[in-house]
Amino acid sequence: MKLQKLSKVVAVAAITMTSLSASYTMAADGKVYRLKMAETWNANFPIFGDAPREMARLAEEMSDGRLKITIDSANKHKAPFGVFDMVRSGQYDLGHSASYYWKGKVPNTLYFTTMPFGMTTPEQYGWFYYGGGQALSDKVYSKFGLRSFPGGNTGNQMGGWFQKEINSVEDLKGLKMRIPGFAGEVMAKLGAKPTNIPSGELFTALERRTIDALEWVGPSLDLRMGFHKIAPYYYTGWHEPATELQFLVNERTWKKLPDDLRTILRTSMKLSSYDMYIQSYHESAENWAKMKQEFPNIEVKSFPSSVMKAMYDANESLLAEKAAEDPLAKEILDSQAQYMQKVRVWTNISDRAYLDSLDNLAD
Amino acid sequence: MKLQKLSKVVAVAAITMTSLSASYTMAADGKVYRLKMAETWNANFPIFGDAPREMARLAEEMSDGRLKITIDSANKHKAPFGVFDMVRSGQYDLGHSASYYWKGKVPNTLYFTTMPFGMTTPEQYGWFYYGGGQALSDKVYSKFGLRSFPGGNTGNQMGGWFQKEINSVEDLKGLKMRIPGFAGEVMAKLGAKPTNIPSGELFTALERRTIDALEWVGPSLDLRMGFHKIAPYYYTGWHEPATELQFLVNERTWKKLPDDLRTILRTSMKLSSYDMYIQSYHESAENWAKMKQEFPNIEVKSFPSSVMKAMYDANESLLAEKAAEDPLAKEILDSQAQYMQKVRVWTNISDRAYLDSLDNLAD
Repeated sequence: MKLQKLSKVVAVAAITMTSLSASYTMAADGKVYRLKMAETWNANFPIFGDAPREMARLAEEMSDGRLKITIDSANKHKAPFGVFDMVRSGQYDLGHSASYYWKGKVPNTLYFTTMPFGMTTPEQYGWFYYGGGQALSDKVYSKFGLRSFPGGNTGNQMGGWFQKEINSVEDLKGLKMRIPGFAGEVMAKLGAKPTNIPSGELFTALERRTIDALEWVGPSLDLRMGFHKIAPYYYTGWHEPATELQFLVNERTWKKLPDDLRTILRTSMKLSSYDMYIQSYHESAENWAKMKQEFPNIEVKSFPSSVMKAMYDANESLLAEKAAEDPLAKEILDSQAQYMQKVRVWTNISDRAYLDSLDNLAD
Repeated sequence: MKLQKLSKVVAVAAITMTSLSASYTMAADGKVYRLKMAETWNANFPIFGDAPREMARLAEEMSDGRLKITIDSANKHKAPFGVFDMVRSGQYDLGHSASYYWKGKVPNTLYFTTMPFGMTTPEQYGWFYYGGGQALSDKVYSKFGLRSFPGGNTGNQMGGWFQKEINSVEDLKGLKMRIPGFAGEVMAKLGAKPTNIPSGELFTALERRTIDALEWVGPSLDLRMGFHKIAPYYYTGWHEPATELQFLVNERTWKKLPDDLRTILRTSMKLSSYDMYIQSYHESAENWAKMKQEFPNIEVKSFPSSVMKAMYDANESLLAEKAAEDPLAKEILDSQAQYMQKVRVWTNISDRAYLDSLDNLAD
């Protein structure tokens, strides 16, 4: 945050405090607060990049220009996975990224993006806002002088594009697949070879069979990558049922903001993250229709239950390891597991039962 | 809206317009705008009443006290279903209600709450914000000098509490059921007797078999009504898959607000409506667990497919009648049907396929 003449602001605030009601003090300074945000994405990255821009626009309009946020994309700051450090140090006031990108640095941040076999989007928002998630997130991030808030949800991510069918656990052995994060560890446990390849090279790698499979996001962002033109099988998801991006705020910036601007910032972040969920849902529907029209032979497949069972068990054993290593990890994982057990019953008797009961009606 | 010294405000605005940048003109007036809202609900009505209060709190905090909204509940203004008229006349600036309550007056408002066999919540938000829904809503409401915005979603509503099982269409004949709105018309077409009973008398009516069944909302609001203590069957939903409440704004109030306060009002409405969806989801999960613990013999049932098919066909024929009567109704219904056809494919290969693939994993 740039704060020219900070001492003068404080002085003005102190004076007005005595003459006006408390709620007017800081806003009455009329100061413009200029915040800088670093995003993990390159310029013009759709959907992921729309959320922070929508957030900045709302904040500026609602504050009548007193809160101005400029966004640096990865092609400018050159550190897509350095967002955590740059916001922590104060080089940037704000960040927009996904917490599983810095799991190597702070393992407990992993759990706030999404988990294999985890909650769906409304379930996860329920946990975060009403089931104790925000308090656990604060527990993890406060140690680093940071605040973290939801930054937009992709909804359920597809399991990925495959060159060949997966009929058994045996078919995973030696499978070269681009699948990062915790899900990659699950696949490795079953004999697959998770590889990391820069996004610009993924199409060629899949086309030339350098890799056998890859997961990206879902139709919302997969369409422009063109994978549907070169791989015949599109598997349904298991590994990222509700991927939530994150806004990061440097704690010093947060504390310096007057109350009204802090609420404006928080509201703008929260609204733009919900909006990204709905935008993703919409774009996935539109883009899947386009893919399917252009390439009607694409087959949507789900992994057979033997494969799902093996991945589920591998995931459970990895989670047990994480919980055993760190009491806070255990606290977060227990909280999620308990919440999911309760909320999934509701999902099953509401939306799922509804969708099931519609089968074969329009005949 | 109370606007004391309106002429003075306009004069000040005109003067500052020349000396300051446009975005600062109106906010610089420092005026407090006091808006009055009428809600359909009685005081302390949970969840439905939380949404407008959360909205008002956000608006006041973000505007640093310049936008103050007071809320009158139905027990004060005595006209729960008169909200449309009271906001239209300017007696209130704002309303919080559900548009299907005034379908008798303006039939085309019906379609913005929820429709039997219609979209799920994320699907419906996709339609509203990205698929043309808002523009159609504006087309309907602008004729009455009103703006309407989403006001909170209950999520999927349960099909209701039944004293006896429904095994065939025959079982619906003569069935006395509290089920209002379009769904009541569907039931009537199949020989049921939809009845309207004040909410305070519902428990006794169901207990004494004055009625055979009723639908209310879902566990989020059904728990406090106590129906689970007196009816053994809880049917899954078909008639209100995504009930959205509405905020109403008088067009004159809307236009009088300075730009920053208008964005603050709109953002506060939009965020509190998303939040109500997540709160409803959470409360349904919690309350269903409580009901089931207290009364483990409650049976969750879905209507057999023959009954679903009959209700679906009755619904389709009613929709065709509505579309034939009014070109704007046809435009809205076509827009929803086309959107749903596309988005449902995505729902089925994403969240639904994910949930299906989890069956029997945790054994």
